[in-house]
Amino acid sequence: MTSYEQVLAALPAEIVVSDKDIIDGYTTDFRKKYRGESPALLRPRSTEEVALIVKLCDQHKVPLIPVGGNTGYCGGATPDESGQQLLISLQRMNKIREVDADNLSITVDAGCILSEVHQAAEQVNLMFPLSLGSQQSCQIGGNISTNAGGVSAVRYGITRDLVLGLEVVLPDGQILSNLSPLRKDNRGYALHQLLIGAEGSLGIVTGASLRLFLPPVNRVTAFLAISGINDLMPLLAKAQQYTGEAVTSFEYISGASLDLLFAGKPELRRPVQTSSKHFVLIEAATSSPVLAMDQAIEAFFEDGMSEEMILDGVIATSEQQRQDFWNLREHIPEGEVLNGGSVKHDVSVRISDMARFIELGSDLVNRYGQGARLSVYGHVGDGNVHFNVLAPEGVKAAAFLEEVSAEVSPCIYDLVAKFDGSFSAEYGLGQDKLSLDQSYGDPVKRRLMGRIKNVLDPKAVMNPGKVVGNQICDPS
Amino acid sequence: MTSYEQVLAALPAEIVVSDKDIIDGYTTDFRKKYRGESPALLRPRSTEEVALIVKLCDQHKVPLIPVGGNTGYCGGATPDESGQQLLISLQRMNKIREVDADNLSITVDAGCILSEVHQAAEQVNLMFPLSLGSQQSCQIGGNISTNAGGVSAVRYGITRDLVLGLEVVLPDGQILSNLSPLRKDNRGYALHQLLIGAEGSLGIVTGASLRLFLPPVNRVTAFLAISGINDLMPLLAKAQQYTGEAVTSFEYISGASLDLLFAGKPELRRPVQTSSKHFVLIEAATSSPVLAMDQAIEAFFEDGMSEEMILDGVIATSEQQRQDFWNLREHIPEGEVLNGGSVKHDVSVRISDMARFIELGSDLVNRYGQGARLSVYGHVGDGNVHFNVLAPEGVKAAAFLEEVSAEVSPCIYDLVAKFDGSFSAEYGLGQDKLSLDQSYGDPVKRRLMGRIKNVLDPKAVMNPGKVVGNQICDPS
Repeated sequence: MTSYEQVLAALPAEIVVSDKDIIDGYTTDFRKKYRGESPALLRPRSTEEVALIVKLCDQHKVPLIPVGGNTGYCGGATPDESGQQLLISLQRMNKIREVDADNLSITVDAGCILSEVHQAAEQVNLMFPLSLGSQQSCQIGGNISTNAGGVSAVRYGITRDLVLGLEVVLPDGQILSNLSPLRKDNRGYALHQLLIGAEGSLGIVTGASLRLFLPPVNRVTAFLAISGINDLMPLLAKAQQYTGEAVTSFEYISGASLDLLFAGKPELRRPVQTSSKHFVLIEAATSSPVLAMDQAIEAFFEDGMSEEMILDGVIATSEQQRQDFWNLREHIPEGEVLNGGSVKHDVSVRISDMARFIELGSDLVNRYGQGARLSVYGHVGDGNVHFNVLAPEGVKAAAFLEEVSAEVSPCIYDLVAKFDGSFSAEYGLGQDKLSLDQSYGDPVKRRLMGRIKNVLDPKAVMNPGKVVGNQICDPS
Repeated sequence: MTSYEQVLAALPAEIVVSDKDIIDGYTTDFRKKYRGESPALLRPRSTEEVALIVKLCDQHKVPLIPVGGNTGYCGGATPDESGQQLLISLQRMNKIREVDADNLSITVDAGCILSEVHQAAEQVNLMFPLSLGSQQSCQIGGNISTNAGGVSAVRYGITRDLVLGLEVVLPDGQILSNLSPLRKDNRGYALHQLLIGAEGSLGIVTGASLRLFLPPVNRVTAFLAISGINDLMPLLAKAQQYTGEAVTSFEYISGASLDLLFAGKPELRRPVQTSSKHFVLIEAATSSPVLAMDQAIEAFFEDGMSEEMILDGVIATSEQQRQDFWNLREHIPEGEVLNGGSVKHDVSVRISDMARFIELGSDLVNRYGQGARLSVYGHVGDGNVHFNVLAPEGVKAAAFLEEVSAEVSPCIYDLVAKFDGSFSAEYGLGQDKLSLDQSYGDPVKRRLMGRIKNVLDPKAVMNPGKVVGNQICDPS
């Protein structure tokens, strides 16, 4: 028997899936950039079954690849081509373990779909703020393992800020559990922080305690056309001032990104008729029945207009109109797909450098020429922008984009490095960005990551080849 | 030469202090519970000098104890009695490296006093919210290494939430630096999270990038007498609702704690004349010139009164009155000292369990009898309460408190454990709480902490005997 067969033979048959059609749902990544093979998908029903699987894999040195909703952008949950790596999915572990409304917390199985967590919070009239385009299919365990960001991080933080505690199966099969939903706990090292964003390379997150918040009773959403890129971040500062730091989303959408979407989906309507190169979707909200958030946004709007930073704008007057604004924002990636796809750069810089970065990055792409088109948008309130490059209309995209990857991307990443920014703001490293980390990452950090990986997972069983790569680390 | 003499001989003379009077400022901890010896205090002027010191200590296996403002409660910065451990203070590294107002960030040397960080933020009309009783003497490096909490965590989070990046000298003398003040960065493991709260046992924090916030333009502070302990947390929920989650402080003060203070300092005035066993100091603030935070607090107040949860209360009408309220809160620990000191229990439970915990804990102390007095107060908005026991009036405190430690404390910690709470909410472990961690801590977590300590600091040079103790860990 090969190693993985020994693992499979020792497991309850009910949790082993060998159906190729099901397995195939996980052997190609979301962006169809990576393709691998796997003999089986394991679907444990409990933390103890996860621990059993991990122990067996450790014992037989069988690589184990945790998969979530398969919505990642870096191939972090895709097996290699060896056909020797087992997949593990927590889709059967999808219970809401507990909602404690008075503690503003919820404890869930890691296999819960993000939108299920939203619903469970709503049932007690509370809110879990993590909000992503993929929320109908991504799993909370994946969100935690990739430290997901999303559209409301400017107010509520990234996933790391929302986690109160984790239950984790370590690479040796031991269960590390601190699910008690405490706000403060200084008993030694914050080990669960190490697991957040570790992309399954240091263990498998099986459960989580998460923070909940009060839902808005007064929410204002506006779509703005702004004068110039230099007005972008000063407008956020103004909005934070007027709303008392209650801005829940501040999403930049370039005119080019909108144009791509309207070209592909002519049935959509423009929220603002004034033409501009730069738009902002802003939302602010309060749980207070007393505080007039609508007046705060109106004051912001008037101030921005009088200073000629805002050219034009619409404040949503109905939930439908609000949904329409968000619908545009959420479909921007689809606009790229409808135009042949893009080479994505998920970068972050200081908020104070955002405008200059977009300017210099755009110059770079314009200098490259060849008709390359830009689609720039994202969570600029967090200093995070998706800086994406497309092929010209009518050109065969695949070959063009390959050239862009080879010739333009390095220049963009050089520019990010000059700003001391990050070449992976929210997507993680997976396998896609390992070479970038070799080029731009801090070698001291990489060595330390390798040492920690080695001590926790000396046989390199947990998601090998991702995040820390396959390096053999000098333990000295 | 002994080992430490070899280290001292290799260092520039200007950074070695052998003056016993100066050294003595660090060989006894703040609470005078631990006394040690040290032949020298090292005062490096740069990160490179810190790295040199650490390398030499590693080479010669000389234990190195990082000291900050010596304001900790767990003896985490006190050397042992061997006289072989060197002290290192970053007091000379006290520069504000950069303030980037548009990025809402500040980058500082770790030796900066916390109040100096406050002032630097204020100079650009911004605010660093970490607020502690010891802020005139504690250092930001110490705050980070102990993951300090304080009185405004309910809104702005604990120190961990305020750190954007760190510069750290690792136990092998390498410098790990990610000071770029980014909001989002998913390039691999969050190593700096491991250093936050590590109490100097995994390296020395030499610099930090921190988040800044908008200062309040409308701040409301009230001192409330409340009906019963069961009204405590529902009142916070109400306040969060009315203020749109803008409560910046929610401090519980028991009537007993106030009485102790007034007994010791009769010149102080009671803010509320109505007698009660339970008081709350609440503050809410907004940066908005539009949102009427005073009206929100008034609505909260009326609601609380009409539901008979609030017995009486005063909203500060001047900055002086506000300062008077805070003055009372800040002097509660002094009230204990003036009454012979206390046995402190810095515990956290769920917000939803807070009232029940205070009730059952008080029952415990009352059952113990012997005239023991209680002083209960703290950051209940974070689920964190200081549950302290004092000797009766006129009784020799030292002996009594020793008995309390031996007989009552274990029962209180058992109760905390029953609630799945933490026996160290914000103070850390240091050397004082190692035995508690042996009794109540998770052995899986302790083993993993030991393995991480071993791989980063195999010679146990960095603050040995603290946090992870002196355990020799089985690396398997």
